[in-house]
Amino acid sequence: MRLSKFFLPVSKEAPADAAIVSHQLMLRTGMIRQNGAGIYSWLPLGYRVLKRIEQIVREEMNRAGAIEMLMPTLQQADLWRESGRYDDYGKEMLRIKDRHERDMLYGPTNEELITDVFRTYVKSYKQLPLNLYHQQWKFRDEVRPRFGVMRGREFLMKDAYSFDLTEEDARAAYRKMFCAYLNAFDRMGLTAIPMRADTGPIGGDLSHEFIILADTGESAVFCDKALLDLPAPGLDLDFESDLTPFVTERTGYYAATEEMHDEAAFNALPEDRRVSARGIEVGHIFFFGTKYSKPMNAVVQGPDGQMVPVQMGSYGIGVSRLLGAIIEACHDENGIVWPESVAPFDVGLINMRPGNEACDAACNTLYAALTAAGREVLYDETDDRAGAKFARMDLIGLPWQTTVGPRGVTEGKVEVKNRKTGEKHDVKIEDMLAQLKGS
Amino acid sequence: MRLSKFFLPVSKEAPADAAIVSHQLMLRTGMIRQNGAGIYSWLPLGYRVLKRIEQIVREEMNRAGAIEMLMPTLQQADLWRESGRYDDYGKEMLRIKDRHERDMLYGPTNEELITDVFRTYVKSYKQLPLNLYHQQWKFRDEVRPRFGVMRGREFLMKDAYSFDLTEEDARAAYRKMFCAYLNAFDRMGLTAIPMRADTGPIGGDLSHEFIILADTGESAVFCDKALLDLPAPGLDLDFESDLTPFVTERTGYYAATEEMHDEAAFNALPEDRRVSARGIEVGHIFFFGTKYSKPMNAVVQGPDGQMVPVQMGSYGIGVSRLLGAIIEACHDENGIVWPESVAPFDVGLINMRPGNEACDAACNTLYAALTAAGREVLYDETDDRAGAKFARMDLIGLPWQTTVGPRGVTEGKVEVKNRKTGEKHDVKIEDMLAQLKGS
Repeated sequence: MRLSKFFLPVSKEAPADAAIVSHQLMLRTGMIRQNGAGIYSWLPLGYRVLKRIEQIVREEMNRAGAIEMLMPTLQQADLWRESGRYDDYGKEMLRIKDRHERDMLYGPTNEELITDVFRTYVKSYKQLPLNLYHQQWKFRDEVRPRFGVMRGREFLMKDAYSFDLTEEDARAAYRKMFCAYLNAFDRMGLTAIPMRADTGPIGGDLSHEFIILADTGESAVFCDKALLDLPAPGLDLDFESDLTPFVTERTGYYAATEEMHDEAAFNALPEDRRVSARGIEVGHIFFFGTKYSKPMNAVVQGPDGQMVPVQMGSYGIGVSRLLGAIIEACHDENGIVWPESVAPFDVGLINMRPGNEACDAACNTLYAALTAAGREVLYDETDDRAGAKFARMDLIGLPWQTTVGPRGVTEGKVEVKNRKTGEKHDVKIEDMLAQLKGS
Repeated sequence: MRLSKFFLPVSKEAPADAAIVSHQLMLRTGMIRQNGAGIYSWLPLGYRVLKRIEQIVREEMNRAGAIEMLMPTLQQADLWRESGRYDDYGKEMLRIKDRHERDMLYGPTNEELITDVFRTYVKSYKQLPLNLYHQQWKFRDEVRPRFGVMRGREFLMKDAYSFDLTEEDARAAYRKMFCAYLNAFDRMGLTAIPMRADTGPIGGDLSHEFIILADTGESAVFCDKALLDLPAPGLDLDFESDLTPFVTERTGYYAATEEMHDEAAFNALPEDRRVSARGIEVGHIFFFGTKYSKPMNAVVQGPDGQMVPVQMGSYGIGVSRLLGAIIEACHDENGIVWPESVAPFDVGLINMRPGNEACDAACNTLYAALTAAGREVLYDETDDRAGAKFARMDLIGLPWQTTVGPRGVTEGKVEVKNRKTGEKHDVKIEDMLAQLKGS
């Protein structure tokens, strides 16, 4: 993508009303534009990151055997009356009347709707296990939306729903999601710590929040320092194997959100392992058994011929919030430092002297070679000053910068900079081309 | 994807309330599930097709130089008061009050919102031309939603918005979209005919609807038969070249929707070239100049230093409606016949004797080879009767069926069927594997 053809409205000043660094940087880099309280447009740069995060989530859900679908944003109030949550849910539910005065709502979550889909089609244990998920916009009418996409009102969530005949099977489904979540966040360059959590309005007796530690996090969290260095299960995990040992080991360490915090257990840890910090919730998983299937009569026939309510769990990831969380974890004084897996472009190509024949030719050659090798390139061929170009590339945080200047080009060289380490190297153009061809 | 792990709730009966064949087939194949009047869940099979259509639209928009972003579903009423459309738009606009009693609405289209984004960031003609698009769910509160996804209330639309300094440039932007649309629909296996159309609530003085001829179409349309055989401009079209000759030639033939129909001009055609038919609108493009930029003060500085309202056009494609339109155009008495470009899977692999060692081994080998060659495979390894398996594969309409039976396998052969032509051939497994390896 040529920068002059792209839409990248960066600005120098941090807006006064943006309180945290991720919100400031998303506005400064032209990733988002506020269209109302807690409602945002995703401008092209932000949209590209959103899509990459969505794709990682998709791949890890699919790997764990979940199946993608899509439920609508608007729901009928009647379904929520069946589960009993229509009145329970407070003002955060956006209630709507259509032209025929029917009660509708903008879905804040989808337990009722998916249970209705399930009961329509699934009648036998032979069709189980089943895990259906979607990535769809939700709305929660927060009284005070803040921190940009971290606590917006319209937000993108991945929510999965598992259906099993027995509680034992449902707990196995829960463990699959537990592992898939660790892999997904790990791929985004994040260390997400599963913590025992309150189940809130979703319900159930087993729940973990996946927490990124960050000073700007909204929750107080407590955990064993050892958790910070434990690896994700890895993409070669066999999801059909028994995941109990892994999950038991991982949940054996102390980790809890404020609501579930047990001061005595925490203090039993050696002092240098006690982490008391702020955290950002990026995922939340629940096992709630028959909380919805019973009132909504989602029953399946077991092997013994008996009809029993299906055992369910639900599993959320805050897809749009993750952009904020990643920036909170990955930035420096010059701007964002994207992990390679979610960066809006892989490489920023800077032409220091557009109009200079040798520079233009080298840039065009590199642009074509990088693109052919599957790299997404943002090519800055504008007439802006060199300092402005470098500052902008640092600000938007692409993992690699390749700078082509008139002096280097005469020697057949370009400068390659790693945004994260700041390290710069002169690289021969022919070497880079050869390397790209082999990749 | 193994069928036993997939979620494909097909049913034998056509539901009584589905009046047209695409709606019947989408329900029978378990592509969609109604969640309320004109509101649908996209079950896994339908979702896969939706994604493929979305991707074709994306690729053709990008090829034409448009840039993808994403606007929210909910909008502030105030923006629509600025343009004057808040009161003009009737009951089809879903109006909402949030917890603070602020007037909001579920966007039926996005001219106001994108104009607001534009005026925030773009101040100079040097930043033009610009074409921004998104694919987002919209809501129109139809009084009588019908025909499944063809006239739903919550629907997925691609809408693009072009911004130019002069009317001449804006008309060039319009021509780019005109050509990109023909290419996009062509890739979906559709013959879409651009017809002079009424501009309706969007406004402007130049507009074309892209129409698929179908008996079940909701509009009466009239066109020159010659248009049915004209090719799309092709994917090698240079969008930076002057597209006037192509567009002039293509719009030189008579083609109009009922509202714009000119009986005299139509009757001037030789009788055997007069096509009077029903049509499905799958796209609609508009040039409306300064209709929004003037009241909303979206102005840019021209080369002469003067501030002028920007010239705009908008360009919609009914992404979710396209599934219905494609099925209307592509089905037979046994079910759907997907064009290869949008099929939910490329190949249906049928194991006639699961449990038979040779059949299982051949299927596993073919499944792996097809997948490695980039084909999406739906592998039916269920214990259902042979007849049920064939009927189901025909019903869901995958372009190719590969059937593995115990007799053929002993001879190293499988049967390959083309869903569209019905032609069947015995193919040697080793030949198929060799061919896939080379592909």
